[in-house]
Amino acid sequence: LEENNIVFIKAQIFELHPADIADIVKHLGLDEGKHLFDYLDEEQAAQTLVELDEDIREKLLELFSPKEIAEQVDQLDSDDAADLLGELSEQRKDEVISKMEDKEHASEVIDLLRYDEDSAGGLMQSEFVQVRSSFTVKRCIIELRKQAEEVEKVYSIYVVDESDVLLGVLSLKRLLFAKPTSLISELYQSNNIKYVKTNSHKEDVADIMKRYDLIAIPVVDYQNKLVGRITIDDVVDVMQEEAEKDYQLASGITDNVEATASVFKNTKSRLPWILIGLLGGVLSSLILQNYEADIQINPVLAFFIPLITATGGNVGVQSSAIVVQGLASKEFMFKGIFKRILKELLVGVLIGLICGILIFLFNFFTNTDIIMGITIGISIFIVVIIAAIFGTLFPLILNKLKIDPALATGPFVTTTNDILGLSVYFMIAFMLYN
Amino acid sequence: LEENNIVFIKAQIFELHPADIADIVKHLGLDEGKHLFDYLDEEQAAQTLVELDEDIREKLLELFSPKEIAEQVDQLDSDDAADLLGELSEQRKDEVISKMEDKEHASEVIDLLRYDEDSAGGLMQSEFVQVRSSFTVKRCIIELRKQAEEVEKVYSIYVVDESDVLLGVLSLKRLLFAKPTSLISELYQSNNIKYVKTNSHKEDVADIMKRYDLIAIPVVDYQNKLVGRITIDDVVDVMQEEAEKDYQLASGITDNVEATASVFKNTKSRLPWILIGLLGGVLSSLILQNYEADIQINPVLAFFIPLITATGGNVGVQSSAIVVQGLASKEFMFKGIFKRILKELLVGVLIGLICGILIFLFNFFTNTDIIMGITIGISIFIVVIIAAIFGTLFPLILNKLKIDPALATGPFVTTTNDILGLSVYFMIAFMLYN
Repeated sequence: LEENNIVFIKAQIFELHPADIADIVKHLGLDEGKHLFDYLDEEQAAQTLVELDEDIREKLLELFSPKEIAEQVDQLDSDDAADLLGELSEQRKDEVISKMEDKEHASEVIDLLRYDEDSAGGLMQSEFVQVRSSFTVKRCIIELRKQAEEVEKVYSIYVVDESDVLLGVLSLKRLLFAKPTSLISELYQSNNIKYVKTNSHKEDVADIMKRYDLIAIPVVDYQNKLVGRITIDDVVDVMQEEAEKDYQLASGITDNVEATASVFKNTKSRLPWILIGLLGGVLSSLILQNYEADIQINPVLAFFIPLITATGGNVGVQSSAIVVQGLASKEFMFKGIFKRILKELLVGVLIGLICGILIFLFNFFTNTDIIMGITIGISIFIVVIIAAIFGTLFPLILNKLKIDPALATGPFVTTTNDILGLSVYFMIAFMLYN
Repeated sequence: LEENNIVFIKAQIFELHPADIADIVKHLGLDEGKHLFDYLDEEQAAQTLVELDEDIREKLLELFSPKEIAEQVDQLDSDDAADLLGELSEQRKDEVISKMEDKEHASEVIDLLRYDEDSAGGLMQSEFVQVRSSFTVKRCIIELRKQAEEVEKVYSIYVVDESDVLLGVLSLKRLLFAKPTSLISELYQSNNIKYVKTNSHKEDVADIMKRYDLIAIPVVDYQNKLVGRITIDDVVDVMQEEAEKDYQLASGITDNVEATASVFKNTKSRLPWILIGLLGGVLSSLILQNYEADIQINPVLAFFIPLITATGGNVGVQSSAIVVQGLASKEFMFKGIFKRILKELLVGVLIGLICGILIFLFNFFTNTDIIMGITIGISIFIVVIIAAIFGTLFPLILNKLKIDPALATGPFVTTTNDILGLSVYFMIAFMLYN
């Protein structure tokens, strides 16, 4: 940032959304990025921090004094403030909290820090608008004016009784069109109100909000008292993470592996998956050892090892992925597991038949040894069926054991299919040739 | 549904959300499901149809007369109505439209049918609230009361000029607190308004809404006239689809393969991926043919074929997945591609070194042939590096060619890695043994 650009930047930066400023900070790097914060107003600076990636934010915050961080945290909604504080060390967290000016806000944030970050309590914010059912519309609007100052986005008004127990929801639209003397109790919707408990899992919160097309959901404690709300923007992130997790498991990477991670960190999180595959390869080599003499007599047998392992692996991963998606969308709720396996068996037979015939024909026209064609054809047929069944059962078993079934689509299932497939292939070859 | 249950069902069903009724319909099957619709009020029936899975809805609608469908479509928001009509045959669509009672609604729906379903126009609804900037607050509320009847959820009010060109946005909260004599032009926000064009791609719409945490976004035509709005619930579905697509490509299934699809349909959409793998297997066998004599002399060479292909495949898929995720989150915008490849090269060297040493040691302790250990150790080292580089480059090239880079993580990259890996392995063996 050259000196003569400062005026220009100051004029431009106020126009930008914090998400865009965060991108500029990312581009500038830490030192110049920190410098840029001097030109932002407090609200903008705080929101820009929220928009930054966690790893960059952590490094950047080390350049801020506790007082500077406290100023930013004062500006933030309680949920963002709690997330930001949660990333600091215990000591620094306490320092920042003690420096916060808005003591009420500080105590709200401290409350939120108690909750598990994977629970509704960890997602919710303390900023929401609530009124008593006994209020008139007029009093409600006065109350609203008071509360709405600190609530950035009001989607609906929550109606509670004298002990803050959630009774229902009132839309702003309804309030706008009501007579000032009407009672809230005559206006609000109390039937079929969707809410979550503070200890609900964040994925369940996401499921409910998606299922019922909600943009905000109230959160109650174990006494049904209203304690917070969760807005759709935070839940969108949860859904995104969830979907990405499946993809990551299928590709054998963990969510720590980001393009920006260091070489060492990158290697460390990828290595376990690779070592599983390596172990599988070693086991395969031990199985093949038993057939050393057969391979020596008929090396053509070895030519089709990659074909067997690749086809088995591909079919197995497909079968697992279909089950994983079915489980995620709860499609299996009403369907029998047995029916699923039967169907997969039929699909396996069909795909196996097609592949078996194709590969037999390829052999028939390129190789004079017809037994080889029969061996590889039958093997592919059986390997495909086994892979389809195994690929279906494996995620179902994981799910029963409360392990994420998406794990099944990773290197795990391909490795097992390699071993199963090769055993079948060489057993059949052994039988047909001897 | 037994006769004596009807009263019970009638009493219960009114309490349920359409998403829950849709689950019951799914559970009951087509005929009884159709029967259940007789007990729903028009609004509920229409919303339940929207909540059903596409394949069930299609079959169910065949049991409805055009008049019955028209009654449902009359109840729906224009975007849902257009989606539903889009699923019907041309002839049936025309019949339904001609039977619709609300002619204005019908013409809105027909307008929406013109747009590509992957564009903002295909996602948007014609239900939104707009006011002129010259209105007073009082007039605005009167206008609102008129328009809001058909707009189920009002999030914000769009402000336009005399020719319907979008000027800005006014929040309900702001309106609620304003004096009745204030002018809208003094109240609305005109800076930094986020909007999309009718021809914007739906994934871009989702990116913008996610980036700026929006719950609704206005859609304008090429003259900047306000023509619709897109709400977050529809965009949540787009984001979900997008994330699932990556997972599906990585697992070699297409989005048509659902757990509920028929055996034949299931086979048909999985087969192309399997045949790619099969072709790869055949190519591998052709490469191995060149080394028939070597395998015959030293069958131990064949034992490590699965290890080479599996390890190469796993590393390649990891590298591709990291690039795909980086591209999706636009992390590469500010980073050099060259830097990315260099980093991946270093990770490859590190993983390759670890795997190479491990596999050499395994051989050293289980096999007297030290050259075999050196061959497989060096091969794994090189294969891992090649797989890492190829896995990184392939999705980047696809992306440049405007092909979905997630395709790279599927059977495609593993097949190519099989072939590359085996070539390297046997070339090294050939050199070391001869």
